[in-house]
This record gives sequence, structure tokens and C-alpha cells, in this order.
Amino acid sequence: MPESSHGPATHGRPVAPRTPGRLRPLGLDEVVLSGGFWGNLQHLNAETVIPHCLQWIRRVGTVDNFLPPRQRPTPERRGVLFTDSDAYKVAEALAWEVGRADSPERERQLNELTESIGLAMEADGYVNTYWGAYSERERYTDLQMGHELYCMGHLIQAGVARLRTHGPDPLTELARRAADHVCRRFGPDCASAVDGHPEIEVALVELYRSTGEQRYLRTAQAMIERRGHGLLGQGMFGAAYYQDDTPVRGAEVLRGHAVRALYLAAGAVDVAVETGDDELLRAVITQWTNTVARRTYLTGGMGSRHRDEAFGDDFELPPDRSYSETCAGVAAIMLSHRLLLATGDARYADHIERTLYNIVAASVAEDGASFFYTNTLHRRVHSTPPPAESESTHAATGMRAPWFSVPCCPPNVARTISSLAGYVATSDGSGIQLHQYASGTVRAELDTGRAGISVRTDYPWDGLVEVTVTEALAGPWSLTLRIPSWAERASIEVKGQAHSAEPGTATFERSWMVGDQVLLRMPIRPRWTLPDNRIDAIRGCAALEVGPIIYCLESLADESLKLDAIYVEQGHPEATVVDGLPGVPAFLVEAFERPDRLYDVGWPYHDVAPAAVGVPSRRQVTLVPYHRWANRGVSTMRVWLPTIPSGH
Amino acid sequence: MPESSHGPATHGRPVAPRTPGRLRPLGLDEVVLSGGFWGNLQHLNAETVIPHCLQWIRRVGTVDNFLPPRQRPTPERRGVLFTDSDAYKVAEALAWEVGRADSPERERQLNELTESIGLAMEADGYVNTYWGAYSERERYTDLQMGHELYCMGHLIQAGVARLRTHGPDPLTELARRAADHVCRRFGPDCASAVDGHPEIEVALVELYRSTGEQRYLRTAQAMIERRGHGLLGQGMFGAAYYQDDTPVRGAEVLRGHAVRALYLAAGAVDVAVETGDDELLRAVITQWTNTVARRTYLTGGMGSRHRDEAFGDDFELPPDRSYSETCAGVAAIMLSHRLLLATGDARYADHIERTLYNIVAASVAEDGASFFYTNTLHRRVHSTPPPAESESTHAATGMRAPWFSVPCCPPNVARTISSLAGYVATSDGSGIQLHQYASGTVRAELDTGRAGISVRTDYPWDGLVEVTVTEALAGPWSLTLRIPSWAERASIEVKGQAHSAEPGTATFERSWMVGDQVLLRMPIRPRWTLPDNRIDAIRGCAALEVGPIIYCLESLADESLKLDAIYVEQGHPEATVVDGLPGVPAFLVEAFERPDRLYDVGWPYHDVAPAAVGVPSRRQVTLVPYHRWANRGVSTMRVWLPTIPSGH
Repeated sequence: MPESSHGPATHGRPVAPRTPGRLRPLGLDEVVLSGGFWGNLQHLNAETVIPHCLQWIRRVGTVDNFLPPRQRPTPERRGVLFTDSDAYKVAEALAWEVGRADSPERERQLNELTESIGLAMEADGYVNTYWGAYSERERYTDLQMGHELYCMGHLIQAGVARLRTHGPDPLTELARRAADHVCRRFGPDCASAVDGHPEIEVALVELYRSTGEQRYLRTAQAMIERRGHGLLGQGMFGAAYYQDDTPVRGAEVLRGHAVRALYLAAGAVDVAVETGDDELLRAVITQWTNTVARRTYLTGGMGSRHRDEAFGDDFELPPDRSYSETCAGVAAIMLSHRLLLATGDARYADHIERTLYNIVAASVAEDGASFFYTNTLHRRVHSTPPPAESESTHAATGMRAPWFSVPCCPPNVARTISSLAGYVATSDGSGIQLHQYASGTVRAELDTGRAGISVRTDYPWDGLVEVTVTEALAGPWSLTLRIPSWAERASIEVKGQAHSAEPGTATFERSWMVGDQVLLRMPIRPRWTLPDNRIDAIRGCAALEVGPIIYCLESLADESLKLDAIYVEQGHPEATVVDGLPGVPAFLVEAFERPDRLYDVGWPYHDVAPAAVGVPSRRQVTLVPYHRWANRGVSTMRVWLPTIPSGH
Repeated sequence: MPESSHGPATHGRPVAPRTPGRLRPLGLDEVVLSGGFWGNLQHLNAETVIPHCLQWIRRVGTVDNFLPPRQRPTPERRGVLFTDSDAYKVAEALAWEVGRADSPERERQLNELTESIGLAMEADGYVNTYWGAYSERERYTDLQMGHELYCMGHLIQAGVARLRTHGPDPLTELARRAADHVCRRFGPDCASAVDGHPEIEVALVELYRSTGEQRYLRTAQAMIERRGHGLLGQGMFGAAYYQDDTPVRGAEVLRGHAVRALYLAAGAVDVAVETGDDELLRAVITQWTNTVARRTYLTGGMGSRHRDEAFGDDFELPPDRSYSETCAGVAAIMLSHRLLLATGDARYADHIERTLYNIVAASVAEDGASFFYTNTLHRRVHSTPPPAESESTHAATGMRAPWFSVPCCPPNVARTISSLAGYVATSDGSGIQLHQYASGTVRAELDTGRAGISVRTDYPWDGLVEVTVTEALAGPWSLTLRIPSWAERASIEVKGQAHSAEPGTATFERSWMVGDQVLLRMPIRPRWTLPDNRIDAIRGCAALEVGPIIYCLESLADESLKLDAIYVEQGHPEATVVDGLPGVPAFLVEAFERPDRLYDVGWPYHDVAPAAVGVPSRRQVTLVPYHRWANRGVSTMRVWLPTIPSGH
């Protein structure tokens, strides 16, 4: 199927390879979510999250920064140096949202924002409100930390979203001009430099995919190749901080600043796929594999260190000081999605699912008006609630806040949720692959014509997924379902016939008729999960997972609860479903409570085990979905519960 | 006993209360260490550490910064904004060292350094090479982070050391002029401000103690009272970072930046003791008690967070990311020493001992030429060795480095070791108290005359301490020995008669004769120590302690050792003394090694315990003193060893 610029091949897709890997992405016109977990979150995103972000980028001066200084309410530029990117991410979210569901108001908001952005673009396509013509700071004098290409990368991604959901317009024109400027300045034969914060690489390849202009691909490729050769210097945190320590094709694991590492890896996959560079692709697969095996939280979260927002060493995964930035979750989904498209391997979809439910969905408050920047797995003390009317220090309290002095996460979540349908299903020439389970519809152009299915499910709360064929074509085509890695003993009923299914994928090739049904049944039941012993920080603990949802013990559910006194029995203590928070199941768990009298000795290291001192008493505790915690005031919380030997 | 300015009451003492608490400090002329653990370290300090520090403060421009800009080799001031304090700390170390052992060369070095410092002092006593007349930065325009009073505090402490070991001279004159300036500008009736980094408070009280000038005490008192009322603003890390969140007398635990918190608390004790403010003293005792019970590492180290060099929440004590700054160890010793003097409570001497052996002694390399800035309890990976000829990022690798871009720790260690004798013993009107065990001599003026003892011991490697009376006076006087908290079943033989002794203190009042002997026998044997279960990061682990020494497993001792595969049996696995590193005993421990085949799965969370999968094999491992690790090249290390159930 030949692809034309702006043609259907890229239409509506968050990612759209021109040189397809194993799977082809589908666009927002091809996958529509209707209600359920993700449909409801998309509704919240459209009605509350995006307007909230728009309101805040206006309130804190991000939009005014695009005005010529003398026309601003205050001449001084406001905010940290890279907040232009927040406006671009809001524009991207609006573009996807308009593509998903027409809205004259959002169309107007997008156009207004585009107009503001356009004011700041210099004649040669360079745009930045902190550096360049709007300031006394000469452009590109601090590539290490200046974030100029990072910001323009986000502008280009906004333009790509608009191209794919609408076609050329002033926003896409700004994106093209910025990209052309970047290519002229940093293309293969130009300045041998990279940006300290990757992002331009994915953006340029995506623009290449949507326009067919080779120079965008070649510039991205040059930037991927340049990295790892010490162009950026050591800086405060060393070259690994911005992945300039080792060439991308030589690295074995992701390291340094997590968001940078993940954006770079995503860009490297894009370049590898489009240039047929299998060595580069294999290198990133190795990095992903080692990172997921050794440097990833149970929630899918990545990046454990607060100091430099970085991956730690292998197995350095403290639950209490997990940085696990929301943006790293978004970036990890971007990377896994690209690897899924390139390889078809279900483990990438597994990781996307884990991260969507336990990082992206956790970041947003139930009311859509505050966000986690960091996603801790253990809170010992009641935090001070963040201010409602001013920006929060980005990781100060670890609570959800309306906005941050470094406000990268809220608009990153908004653009991800508005383009979420793109992650649900793919096609190849001969069929449709369903990766994420959500009620809605999927249509795809196969080699022999258009196929369509509808999906009905209460997943993740129920394990039944009903797939019905809605558009059939002559002859056989295949339907592939992902069986999540945790779903042992799933079963599939195809047109009334039962099949067992192993974790991975199950493919059924049939001459489907409209109305044919495939029923996937996954065992949504509580599972106790234990950590690899090398994750020292959670040795001897267990966590409750139910389907793709991580559960946690939150103090608010029970005022009398002292979280650090609670233990569960080793093995598989009983967990019974009960009514929990509104709309979600909770689980009642048999536990033990350690007596208080241990708690007042002057030195916390002794020659006898605390377990030998006091007799714990039995009590029940209620575990709630992790992504819903901290929605009802300040509380303490833990995902990993200490265990005591069974038969205690 | 009346005290005069510069009189014997303050002579040679690191701390010299005018209004004595329970105990009186002794000076460097009264306590002399001769060989053994601390005597040898003092030798290394004098011969290598102090010259090394002098060489580096010259190499990196710290001394040249005191020259008028146009006379400097490069006009630009070099180094981070508070490096003046490094020169002052080196001056303090030299002053104590000259007081401890005459040396014309060190006397000359001190005078040269004093002369350099004097060049930068402005007419009104203000001195700073980053702010004020040497720069275009107006003084006191950034009290939050400017470190001006912090730096002058260290100059004053250097002057105090010189006053107490020598008497007035140009250095003490500079200190007085700086202090007078501070009192004029920030005294009780002047600018209501505090410095973001406490230090001036202890310095001013100490200068008051050595001069009798009330204004120094009153200014320190005013600064202690002002703190905690939000004068400094929120800054990047919140008001708790510089203890400006809660008044000192209202706080219940130390919090925020550890060195700041500990210096402030030490200053508060000084003010409380000198003004008879029992409420303030009790508040700091509460803070110390809660901090030691909940926020202190087994090594005595304090401050777990890298991001803001801060105490974490209660029981947030990760061994792998322990910041545990060397300077916080020094500061904790300063605080505990003051509380020991004020109360006589042996637990403060216990904490000093723990911190001296496991933080201060650990910081210095065996060759005296590199230093730990942070003191981790667990290193998973082989670090890159720091550069030999340039400054290291202060906590980048966590290895010992010759010098740091923030070089506070090496000279802080130097001044502590050179004044160490002051922490060994005290007197009161009726006797001598021996707090730390080291070979040497102690003399003290009691109410009825001069008493003296000599001490012989191979402590901490052997538990026998022989105390011999060398100067006796007519009538009874008392000798008090501290029995460390770990020394269960110690025994004391007094003039041939055996006594049992409990942890705490043992006092013997006798009419001593010259030659009378007291023999303290402490059980120096391996002890397995388990953590409070609330310290999640080391749940299920045990550590080996022998006397006051923490032991660790270091990979260098055995190249085949994979540290994360080693377990010890719960209970008290046998530990047998063997030859270890040169001059120190090691312990051979029966352990288990987990098989390798667990180590290559793609996701580190499972539904079965790793222990249930592979059969560990027995092997022996060698544990060495923690303070000696990382002296033989790069290695991995852990203090806390995971345990497996006994009878495995």
C-alpha cells in the first residue's frame, strides 16, 4: 500500500512509520473508545484536564511569553526556561482532541494558541522565548541545558498531530519552519551538535513520516549517531545524565535522566525503523529488556533517583523515594509502542498496559485538576497539601498538585490521553491486532479491504472482552488478541468454540462474518507478587495485583491504620473483593498488626529481631487501586506490604 | 573555679562552656593521644591530610581568592561561593595541630594563611571573597544561600582554636573583627535576619567563652530565637531545608539539610547552656533522641537524601542511597559532645564513638590523600575512580576523591582529627570521666588539685583498657569509665578487685595512689545486629558489629564474589576472626550463595519467592571493617547482608 504525504497511511496516528515494522498503527479515526476506563478518562481529559492546562499556561505567563516583550503584561519572561514546550504539548493535546471529537471551541483554542506561538517565531524558523531575539541570550549557547531543540521538538510533535488529524494549517506551518531551521543548522552536514534533552529526534522522524521529506529523517539520524561521543561535556551530573556517555548503538541499558533516556531511545527506534538499521533497533531492544528487567517499578514507572531524575543502578528501586516521573511513564509508553510496532512482541504491549493503568491513570486526580509529578510507591508521612492557586515545587511533597514550577507532566498526560486510541490496536496486511482492552470500535484497511470490529468490556474490573466483527471482507483475515503476561489460564471462545490461551498473543484466522464473536476471558483475581531478592528496598514484601491494576494500602481507608505496623502472611493470604472507592473494587486482606510497644526504643538496631519481641494481632485491611490513592485528602500509603512467616 | 578570658578554663578545648554543664571539657594540653587507632590517625592527619588540604586550597584558587582581584593569577574568583570556609577550616586544623604538637613549619603555614585571609577583610570586619568589595555582589543580598555568616563562623572557629592553643595573634584578631561586625549588623537590636546555613551561632558562643564578651553570646542567642519564623522564605527545597519552618525550641526532630540542622542544634545547646535556658536544652535533647532513634544509620551517619542533603522521613534510611555526608558526621559529633558536657549522659559518648569510627575514620583513605564526601552502606556497581588531579563532583561516584568542587568535607575531617583529644575525657570538680578509649594521658584540675591518669589499650581491636593513676591528690576523687551500650557483660577490676559493669557509666571514688590500676574489659566479639522493621530498606538483613566497628562485605576481598548472591542464616551465624586487611582483624562468616540461574528473567516481580526457586550453596565470606573499605581499588560493598531462614 503506497503512502502519500498527509495521506491516509499517517492519518490520525500518534506514530506512523513509513517503513512499517511488523505492525501498522491505526489512527484516531480508526479506533474509537466509548466509555469504560479509558473512554471515561478521555472524557475527563477533554472536559477538564485540557482546559485546566490551558488555564494554567495562561495564568503563569507561558502563553504571554510568546508576545514580544514590550507587549507582555510584564516585560520579563516568566517560568523556567523550557516552558514553551508546555504550550506546545497543550497544542498537541488539543490537536488530537479535535481529531478525536470535533469541537469548535477546542478548534478556536488551538488556533489562538497557534497564533500566539507564531508571534515568537523568528524569520528563519527558530522559536524560543527564553533564548534568541526575545532575550539577550544568544541562541544555542548552552546546548547542554538550554532545551531549545527539545522545545522545538514538542512544537513539531504538535504540528504532526495536527497534520495527521486535520492537514496543513498555521500550526503545521510553524512546525515545518522550525524543523527546516533545525535541519539547516544541525543537519548531517551542519553543526555537529545535539541537544542535552532529546525530543527533537522523535519529532523530526514523525514529521518525515507525515511529509516524506528526507531531510527530517537524516537530521534525526545524524543526531542519534552523534550522541554518546561527549559533545555535551560532563555537566553537573556527568555525561550519562544526557546519554552522552556511550553511543546509542553501544549502550546496554537505559541510564541517566529517565525522560531523556526514553525519548532518545524512542527516537532511535524511529530512525532504525525508517533507515532499516537493524543493529540500532537491536541495541534499543537490549536496552529496553535490561531496563525492564532491572530498573523498572512494579507500576511500570522508571527513574528512581530524585537528585538527577535518573535511573539508578540495577535493582535500585526504593518504593519510598521512587521518583518515577509521570513524564517518564509517558516516554516509556512512547518507546514501548514503537518497539511493539517494530517487532509485534506482546511484552511491549504488556508494559504499555502496566504503565497506562498505574502511572498515567494515577497521575491525574479523579477531578482532573491535579497531577502527580512523581509517583511514589510508599508514603510514610502525611504531606502538606500543595497550594491550590500557585505553582508547586515539582517534587516537593510528592502529592498531586494543580501546577508545577516545572510543569512538564500535566500537558504530557493530556496529549497522551487524547491520543490513547492509537495505542489500542494495530493492523498488518492480513489482520487486526488488539493490544489494549477497552470498549469501542476498530476499523482497518487490510490488503484485501476494510475490516472492522467492536469491543465490549468492563476491563480492567472484569476479565471478559467481547469482540464482534462489524465489517468483514471476502476471504480469511486474522484477529490477534494479546494475552497479558499475568493472565495464566485465560480462555478464548471463537464463534462458540473454546480455546485455551497462553500469555503472549493468540491469532485466529477465519473468514469472518459480520456478527461473529470472539470472547476473551482473563482471570481477574487477586495475585500476590514478590520481588526479585536483589531489589533490596522491598525484600520480604508482597504486593497485590488484580489484572493490570496494582493495589495499595492507604491510611485514609481506615483512620486507625498505622501503615508501618501492618504485615501480611507469607504465601498467598486471602484477599476478598469488597466495595472500595466509588466505582472500583477493593480487596479485604487478612493481615497482622504489630504491637505499639516496640516503637519507643532509642536506637533502631538490635540483636534480636523485632518479630521476636511482640505478638502481632490479626486484623483486616482494605487495599484499593494504586491509581486512585490520594484522592480523598492527605494519607499514608504503601504498595509493598511486609510479610511475616506463615503459621505465625 | 573562676574563669578568666583566655585563661586555663578554655585552654586547648574544642568546646569550653563558661557555665559548665555536668562535665568540663579538657584541652589538648591535658589529653594527649599516643599511638593506637586515633594516635595513628592524628599522625596521618598532621603529616598528610592537612598538607594535602593546604595544597588543594592553593591549587584550586581558594587562597588566591583572598588576594585583591587584580593581584590574583586570574582576576576571576575561583570555586563555589563558600570556599572561603575551606581556608578557615584548614586554619582551624593547623591551629589545633600546632597546639597539639609544636611545629615551626605548621606555625609558618598558619601565619601565611592568616596573612592571606587578612587581605580580604574590609575595614568594618566583613570578609568574603564572593560577596562584597571583591565583587559586584552586594553583601547580604542573599542570606538564604549566600553563606556569608557561615563562612565568617568558620573564621571565628579558627580564631577560637588559636586563642585556646596559643592566645591572641593576627588570626584571633581577624576572628574578633569579623565577630564584632556580625554583632553590629545582626545583634539583638539590629537586623532581624539569620543565615541560611547555621554555623555562626556555635562560633559566636565559643568566642564568647574564650573572651567573655557578652555581645557574642547575645547575638548567637538572637539568631537561635529568630530561626523558624520564616525569615528565609521557601527557597527551592522549602523552609525546613534550613530549619526555618519551626522555632528551635518547638521542633521535635532534626530535619532538612543535615549539616545545617546539626550545626544549628549545636549552637542552640551552646546558647542554652550559657544562658541557663533549660527549655531550649530539653528541646534539642528531644530532637537528638528522636533523630538517633529514627533517622540515623548504623554507622552513626545522618542525612539520607541526595537531592537536598537532608534527613528523610522517620525510618527512611536506604543503605544504597545513604547520603550520610562526612560533614554531617562531624556536625553530629559536635552536637553530641555538647550534650554530653551538658548532661553527662553516656549515650552521647556512644554516638560520638560510633560516628568517629565509622564516619570520620571511614572518610579518610588509608593514605590520607582522598576522602569520602558521602558514606554509603551499599555499593552495587564498580564506580569509575575519581580524577586524581582535578576536583570531583561532590557526590558523583560516592568514592573517595582527592578534592571536590564542594570541598567542605576534607578540611572538616582535618580539624576534627586534630582536636580529637578534646573528645576523649572530661572532668568535674571531683573526678575524671573517660569517654573514649585510646592510649594516652589525661590530666585534670579537680576542685582539690590535679589528677592524672595514663591509658593503655589496643581498642577497638581488643577490649582491655588499662588505666593507671599517674598523678594523685590528697583525699578521694572519682574515675568514671563509659561502658558502651553494646558492651554487655563488661567487667572492671579496680586495684585488683573485680566489679561487673552495665552499659552506661561506672564510677569509682577512691583515694587513689600513683600506680593504682583500673582494668576495663569489654567483650570485643562479633555481634549480629538486626534493624527495626520500619527501616524498610534493610528489612530481613543483618549486619556484623565488633566492638564499635561496623563490618562490611567487600568484593575486592574475593574476586569471585557476587555481592547480591550472598545471604547469611538468620540467627547468629558463626563469625571467626581471621587476618584481614593489614593491621585489622577480619571475620570469616558462614554464608550461602544463591545460584546464578535466577538472574536472567525479564521482569523482576513474580508470584513465587526467589528463595523457593534455586538451592543456595554454602560458602564462606570475609567481612572487613567498614571504615577500611574502598582502599584497594574499585569494589562493591554491603554492610547489611540479606538473611535466609535458619535450617535452610
